[in-house]
Amino acid sequence: MNETKLYKAEILKDFCTNVLIGAGVKGEDADIIAESLICAELRGVKSHGIVRLSTYIERLETGILSLNAHMEFERKGGAMALLDADNGFGQVAGHKAMNTAVNIARTHGVGLVGVRNSNHFGIASYYSMLALKSDMIGIVLTHSSPAMAPYGTITPLLGTNPLSLAVPAKRGRPIVLDMSMSVVARGKIRYAALKGEEIPEGWGLNSNGYPTTDPNQVLKGGSLVPIGGVKGSGLALMVDILCGVLTNSCLTGEVKNITDMSGPSKTGHMFCAVNISSFMDANAFKSNIDQTINIIKSLDAIGNNSVYLPGEIEYELEEKRKREGIPVECKVVKSLNGLANRYGLPAL
Amino acid sequence: MNETKLYKAEILKDFCTNVLIGAGVKGEDADIIAESLICAELRGVKSHGIVRLSTYIERLETGILSLNAHMEFERKGGAMALLDADNGFGQVAGHKAMNTAVNIARTHGVGLVGVRNSNHFGIASYYSMLALKSDMIGIVLTHSSPAMAPYGTITPLLGTNPLSLAVPAKRGRPIVLDMSMSVVARGKIRYAALKGEEIPEGWGLNSNGYPTTDPNQVLKGGSLVPIGGVKGSGLALMVDILCGVLTNSCLTGEVKNITDMSGPSKTGHMFCAVNISSFMDANAFKSNIDQTINIIKSLDAIGNNSVYLPGEIEYELEEKRKREGIPVECKVVKSLNGLANRYGLPAL
Repeated sequence: MNETKLYKAEILKDFCTNVLIGAGVKGEDADIIAESLICAELRGVKSHGIVRLSTYIERLETGILSLNAHMEFERKGGAMALLDADNGFGQVAGHKAMNTAVNIARTHGVGLVGVRNSNHFGIASYYSMLALKSDMIGIVLTHSSPAMAPYGTITPLLGTNPLSLAVPAKRGRPIVLDMSMSVVARGKIRYAALKGEEIPEGWGLNSNGYPTTDPNQVLKGGSLVPIGGVKGSGLALMVDILCGVLTNSCLTGEVKNITDMSGPSKTGHMFCAVNISSFMDANAFKSNIDQTINIIKSLDAIGNNSVYLPGEIEYELEEKRKREGIPVECKVVKSLNGLANRYGLPAL
Repeated sequence: MNETKLYKAEILKDFCTNVLIGAGVKGEDADIIAESLICAELRGVKSHGIVRLSTYIERLETGILSLNAHMEFERKGGAMALLDADNGFGQVAGHKAMNTAVNIARTHGVGLVGVRNSNHFGIASYYSMLALKSDMIGIVLTHSSPAMAPYGTITPLLGTNPLSLAVPAKRGRPIVLDMSMSVVARGKIRYAALKGEEIPEGWGLNSNGYPTTDPNQVLKGGSLVPIGGVKGSGLALMVDILCGVLTNSCLTGEVKNITDMSGPSKTGHMFCAVNISSFMDANAFKSNIDQTINIIKSLDAIGNNSVYLPGEIEYELEEKRKREGIPVECKVVKSLNGLANRYGLPAL
């Protein structure tokens, strides 16, 4: 049912780039968008990978996402900047914003760059990891469309509002946290519904705000459970305030889903780079992170399980997939080839 | 058993200030420490209130905490600073660091100030809220002594590592999140053990890393459960890296508990102020926060419960306690009077 075929990362990236160029996207922008999609595929975050390409193209073709966005810094001063993405690609805005944060942090120790009027930017860790090569800590927040009810209520208003932090190590792999504020992604609940299975208690609430193990009750008017209940709800609200309200992009609850074609998504993001060498010798810091990794890896595990640092499983998968290729489901290949056909490009 | 007596906030604050001065603390420092303790009492965070005074005094008297700390900025440049607290009071260091972050943010849009070689600083929101009067968003992180096992392991290494964010509103009360990364505080588990009661599943793990409802198994070699499992564990690790490793204060797992008198606690904190007016008109922002509050307050509640924003219950309690007084348990009064007696001060 879920038959897959393996593709080299470069092949998939070139394919995506060419489709985007075919749809009218500038070459350098297409390259960034394709890179973020392949980054997600390599790291096993399929939901933010090439399966999204057709949705991006649909947004472009319907004009809901601007093809010729003029992204300009609306404000810039000291250690901050605010980029108006002009309803263009979230990936292009995010790439520009994170690199700007890194450049600011070179001279100011820290750089904080907000983005307004943007769109879905894909996998958050793609941006936080951009800071690593400059020996900086990257921090990324984005809000997303309503999926979680504020604690104590029954109405989905807050997005799952992901957060990513990336920290460089010396010999070890960087520590990369990339998480949403919900216990599980909506995709897992959709998958259970599709298979006719129950979900564990603690994943979702029904339309009255009470726990349910029926995935359909969650999907129809219910909501996702935030991590730690009131805590995750508070975190998601703060991410929304920093990304949506502070960037003056939209009010809480107004950001639209990537699949909602009724108008601009009004997505906001926040990017922060912290220059390690402003605080201490960057090499000593990275050695200390190596030690932190070693300390954690040498702790006794529960049962016979392996102990993983945040991002470690993703790095291992990335290395494997760079060697062996990325598995793509045949129905996704078919959909991608439909796009290729539309722009007169060779099939995958 | 838990008989209490009501005291005016000013009376308690003056009492704490005088005891600290009696123990040799400078007047202005004593004032800050007392203010943070009373802030916790007013907001109902008893665990970080005046009950801590005797521990602080004990640390001072044994010399584990430095009475004459020379707190100096080790590094300062651009939008960052690093304060060496010289093993002095966390409250004094935190107050200085947050105000420095606010001052930096006035000209740079954002200010990021780390603190190293510090001690327990009490309630995190005391510092995040310092940013509010300057129309800024305050963000505060601190690491704390080992209480949670990194995900997949059985050994407590990470602290509950609290985080606080404070956001100003126009007519409404500020939104103030103040949370740790564990599902519940260790105090709640101690309280259950004391009463001989079971704890709900999901609060604690036994010494083999498996869920338990026996509070004693958690307290004896077990660990607290992080919110969202692997997510809260990752968040706590990142707080530790930012507060402990980046400030070069100590390695993960090395920070000592406030009650551990075996040596300096080596606590690190991180303070960030974000200047709203750098991003948008501060008045418009605060009006939008009012709207966010109104939107959330008007959502349908689960059952007949009231809907609260982060910090709202604490503000309501603060107003009530400023009017009616702060309830203090008689056994705490007795212990405080013991301190007063030691320094020849009048009893409460």
